[in-house]
Amino acid sequence: MIIHLEKDISEERLEKIISEVAKTGFKSNLVTTQFGRYLVGIGKNDMDLRSIGSLEGICDIHRVSDQYKMVSAKWKLGHTAVDLGDGIQVGNRNFQIMAGPCSIESEEQIIHTVEHLKKNNVNIMRGGVFKPRSSPYSFRGLGIEGLKLFHKHCSANGIKIITEVMQVSQIEQMIDYVDIFQVGARNTQNFNLLDALGKVDKPVMIKRGIAGTIDELLYSAEYVFSNGNEKILLCERGIRTFEKAYRNTLDLNAVAILKEKSHLPVIVDPSHGVGIRRFVEPMALAGVMAGADGVIVEIHEEPEKAISDGQQSLTIEEAANLYRNVRSVLKVRRELN
Amino acid sequence: MIIHLEKDISEERLEKIISEVAKTGFKSNLVTTQFGRYLVGIGKNDMDLRSIGSLEGICDIHRVSDQYKMVSAKWKLGHTAVDLGDGIQVGNRNFQIMAGPCSIESEEQIIHTVEHLKKNNVNIMRGGVFKPRSSPYSFRGLGIEGLKLFHKHCSANGIKIITEVMQVSQIEQMIDYVDIFQVGARNTQNFNLLDALGKVDKPVMIKRGIAGTIDELLYSAEYVFSNGNEKILLCERGIRTFEKAYRNTLDLNAVAILKEKSHLPVIVDPSHGVGIRRFVEPMALAGVMAGADGVIVEIHEEPEKAISDGQQSLTIEEAANLYRNVRSVLKVRRELN
Amino acid sequence: MIIHLEKDISEERLEKIISEVAKTGFKSNLVTTQFGRYLVGIGKNDMDLRSIGSLEGICDIHRVSDQYKMVSAKWKLGHTAVDLGDGIQVGNRNFQIMAGPCSIESEEQIIHTVEHLKKNNVNIMRGGVFKPRSSPYSFRGLGIEGLKLFHKHCSANGIKIITEVMQVSQIEQMIDYVDIFQVGARNTQNFNLLDALGKVDKPVMIKRGIAGTIDELLYSAEYVFSNGNEKILLCERGIRTFEKAYRNTLDLNAVAILKEKSHLPVIVDPSHGVGIRRFVEPMALAGVMAGADGVIVEIHEEPEKAISDGQQSLTIEEAANLYRNVRSVLKVRRELN
Amino acid sequence: MIIHLEKDISEERLEKIISEVAKTGFKSNLVTTQFGRYLVGIGKNDMDLRSIGSLEGICDIHRVSDQYKMVSAKWKLGHTAVDLGDGIQVGNRNFQIMAGPCSIESEEQIIHTVEHLKKNNVNIMRGGVFKPRSSPYSFRGLGIEGLKLFHKHCSANGIKIITEVMQVSQIEQMIDYVDIFQVGARNTQNFNLLDALGKVDKPVMIKRGIAGTIDELLYSAEYVFSNGNEKILLCERGIRTFEKAYRNTLDLNAVAILKEKSHLPVIVDPSHGVGIRRFVEPMALAGVMAGADGVIVEIHEEPEKAISDGQQSLTIEEAANLYRNVRSVLKVRRELN
Repeated sequence: MIIHLEKDISEERLEKIISEVAKTGFKSNLVTTQFGRYLVGIGKNDMDLRSIGSLEGICDIHRVSDQYKMVSAKWKLGHTAVDLGDGIQVGNRNFQIMAGPCSIESEEQIIHTVEHLKKNNVNIMRGGVFKPRSSPYSFRGLGIEGLKLFHKHCSANGIKIITEVMQVSQIEQMIDYVDIFQVGARNTQNFNLLDALGKVDKPVMIKRGIAGTIDELLYSAEYVFSNGNEKILLCERGIRTFEKAYRNTLDLNAVAILKEKSHLPVIVDPSHGVGIRRFVEPMALAGVMAGADGVIVEIHEEPEKAISDGQQSLTIEEAANLYRNVRSVLKVRRELN
Repeated sequence: MIIHLEKDISEERLEKIISEVAKTGFKSNLVTTQFGRYLVGIGKNDMDLRSIGSLEGICDIHRVSDQYKMVSAKWKLGHTAVDLGDGIQVGNRNFQIMAGPCSIESEEQIIHTVEHLKKNNVNIMRGGVFKPRSSPYSFRGLGIEGLKLFHKHCSANGIKIITEVMQVSQIEQMIDYVDIFQVGARNTQNFNLLDALGKVDKPVMIKRGIAGTIDELLYSAEYVFSNGNEKILLCERGIRTFEKAYRNTLDLNAVAILKEKSHLPVIVDPSHGVGIRRFVEPMALAGVMAGADGVIVEIHEEPEKAISDGQQSLTIEEAANLYRNVRSVLKVRRELN
Repeated sequence: MIIHLEKDISEERLEKIISEVAKTGFKSNLVTTQFGRYLVGIGKNDMDLRSIGSLEGICDIHRVSDQYKMVSAKWKLGHTAVDLGDGIQVGNRNFQIMAGPCSIESEEQIIHTVEHLKKNNVNIMRGGVFKPRSSPYSFRGLGIEGLKLFHKHCSANGIKIITEVMQVSQIEQMIDYVDIFQVGARNTQNFNLLDALGKVDKPVMIKRGIAGTIDELLYSAEYVFSNGNEKILLCERGIRTFEKAYRNTLDLNAVAILKEKSHLPVIVDPSHGVGIRRFVEPMALAGVMAGADGVIVEIHEEPEKAISDGQQSLTIEEAANLYRNVRSVLKVRRELN
Repeated sequence: MIIHLEKDISEERLEKIISEVAKTGFKSNLVTTQFGRYLVGIGKNDMDLRSIGSLEGICDIHRVSDQYKMVSAKWKLGHTAVDLGDGIQVGNRNFQIMAGPCSIESEEQIIHTVEHLKKNNVNIMRGGVFKPRSSPYSFRGLGIEGLKLFHKHCSANGIKIITEVMQVSQIEQMIDYVDIFQVGARNTQNFNLLDALGKVDKPVMIKRGIAGTIDELLYSAEYVFSNGNEKILLCERGIRTFEKAYRNTLDLNAVAILKEKSHLPVIVDPSHGVGIRRFVEPMALAGVMAGADGVIVEIHEEPEKAISDGQQSLTIEEAANLYRNVRSVLKVRRELN
């Protein structure tokens, strides 16, 4: 059950509602976000909403049978658009392409990539500065100084930044230089990180775990939302299976299903989802047809020289072709019945 | 190594070639199909093709580094079109929709489905008469009598039939009534069945195993081809993973990869690939963008009354919508760069 | 519901029972095996057994909530022992080791292996004569002539034979030379083969599918039983997962669970289950502790020269060590509380 | 390559070695732990160890072809024993049982569990105070106050504590009350946490990821070791597969393989590995035979009332039986050839 409260509800009325909810055997969780206040009722028995619904201070009340609540499609009419500022939105008919290198490697690289994105009307640049690496001896990113350079050139050109945050203590360091915090596949169930990202007013994109279920992804989003941050993007990036002909198994079923189960925007990452350059475009296009609200792709001026993920990074020319084709396919999708 | 032989090569020349191949340490497998004669050389060492290439009786000679040979894209220019007769082809820019019930249940059902397909310009009808079922107590299909009814109405209307064959002894029974033999996911590695299907001149569609790799599917196709039958379709129908939010994980990466690894047409089965009616259409459309040469879908006049797979069968109206949208999306795909 | 009928029940009484069962909304399946006659009732509603139980011609009646029936532990007191003749049994405290080469390669090999087994008191020899191989160009076994040689030496020495049958038409060819028919992992859901094996009076060992569930294995066993053959062994041989450090993931959970769900004996195959020679013994021992009724292992005089599966075949010395240790561990298992 | 340095090596000699290593094209990583100083050389080319080996300040030099280095079995003779103090060790023939509730729920529960462990000669108690939970609305543990109570009773009774740490900031809070830090399956690739745990002098047990490979587990251990902490335990706790008859697929192959690939102790967690109470004991015993250096099990006075994981927790009586049987089986394992 989700009780949508009046934003300026008095303490007295709130307590009254909580006490009435308690009588029904439900436990109340008060959620205060950028946009509203909600009481999430967790309980097992069936409940008569009318007894609560007539109390003062309530905008609306919704029965949500899913175990995740705030991120469920069961209570919100329509899809959510996440606002990145400057008129850039993701979700609810706002499709966005995000492109950039796996790792930020140099200022020159940033400058060239920003130019390329501007020329191609791409609004969001990806690039890692804190890199999770299997081996402790691998390159782990340029860190906060890299992020500052990244931000300098993007903000000057109206490009939004998405980059991975790996731990709670980085949030404060990064927050002024980031437009979307990315939670990586290895951190999807790093609940402390999710709690902390729920307490800031910046969009968060959560990648599905390496072998995470669809429901686990929604639970992780619920962590962010229930801590106060409604600005959430979900990302399908391929799952781990027995097949070894490619890097991961891009699960486009999940895209269609997430769009139904949740009101949140869903982004497809075909770069990690297949992991082989020449299949990134068909998978991006397939992702569009499955219903995605955006795609995120890795690009590199010279993929063979990339510090990481070169094998799945598109060249600048391939990337421009992908943008064009993604837009053509999106146009058709919107014209279908 | 594949040596494409002249079709009417003399025994003498053939023996000469085999003996020269043997000298290089390669083992020769003679393959005679509807369309040609080939010598498939299996060996480990590197080989100088020129020593063989100059022998008489040879059209062409190809180095094929894959472990499967005849189904590899490495020796054949372009994609294969499989001819079903009456001008109906699959593959090489001939896209086909296949639709029909999971199981053939009655003559009336056949008649209605044929009408529906004709009205919608769909050329191929699916429908099981021999049904593999997990439990021995479940309905196992109408058998050969059902197939005869199926054939009667389809052939009268120019509709081609695809249906599953489960064992060698059924081939002879079925052959006059079938246009495409389907090998089901549970039989993908039933090598005796594949051997036998290699010996008939009817197209064969092989479904990927429930947890079969892409390479295993190609090996299974190699069984059919090396026994003499070049008319092969490959089918991606979803794989078994940890995710339980749907029936199978449709692996569209596999479609793009199969199209590159092999010259054979690739069909997508979104009905089994996701297993939930309302997601069949987006997955079909995604499959088209991934590069499929056709889609196969389950439809039923009254899905809730279907003997099997009702939950994933489209209604007649949903099916008509899917055909229309598949065609729109296919049109765009062909216009992309 | 399983109705255990009197063996010599009259037609009249049988019809009476079937008609009474039908009235309860259940469908009757008459099962006649080597050992008894049963009526398997399949239905969804709840049923009052007493109305049936008092009819004449019934030994006993059992409610079985599982979807498989005859192989369920819910109706049979205790575990089943499968009798191979000459006092050799598997199951119900009769533990058996099965050992031999992956493929039968020569008469000499058979002779040496039989000697080795006799010396080590191993009663059952494995060895493939019909080999399922991914590639059509691989060695596919010595066939029926190999089996005859195999039988000649084993029968002369009191050793029982287990070997794989790949298709229905081989059953008749093989039956006089085989003590246990093995159904391989690729044929676990070859329902025609299972049907046919249900109609002969020889033990059948069914391997779990490459990615088959525990329930699917039990359903496959139900095919054999419901066709008339109660002599069934189940075999855990590893499943396909994402892990690539070994060949398959031996699932010993499945052994413990199969022993609880079914009354049938369970054999562990550590050779395929891990696929690397030096880990076969610890996995065999672990399998014993998980509750197995037997182990089946691949051995070879010169593993590095084996035509197939050399990497997982034990040498003669390693095998002898394994037998000894398996017996020590089994002894302890039997002494535990 | 691992260069084992003399502990008191001078800066000058160290620089000389680093500069010589650099000349070979290898990158040096200096690792200083509780027990020694090492230079880990990462490089791709083949190298002549002799040119380095003769430099002063070097105890020993080892070629390690694995991509993880310090945790590899390729450089260390024998197995590592991790010392918990008071004569309690894990690994290298020191087998330990760890038992306790999933979550610490009350002081009374701690007292009773400690009594039970003492009575049964179990030296290590498990119990979560910071609980990772899929849903943000679930019980998340008693926190640091719970840990203090846990420590009070354990330390008074000579029982060592293992408990999960979820984030870097908890390490300092917890360190005085913990004997082994556990890294949970969801945090196996939380590299910042691993880095930080490498900087303290307390044993760390790393659980394999939910779908983590064996190599990834070893890489995670390499993070801890290369940051300075040699006291590491590895834990197999089941992986996520398609099978749904149980909670996770306990991968005992991994135990045997980890024991070969690494010198570190390996613990088996049958409670999570199968997730059903009555199968925990056979899986624990199987784990012993696979070569484990310890088992960790969940127990509860009243499993049906446990706040979490009740379905897989043993009763006190079942636990006592398990300890006894584990010890009997261990005894036999040690007597095998």
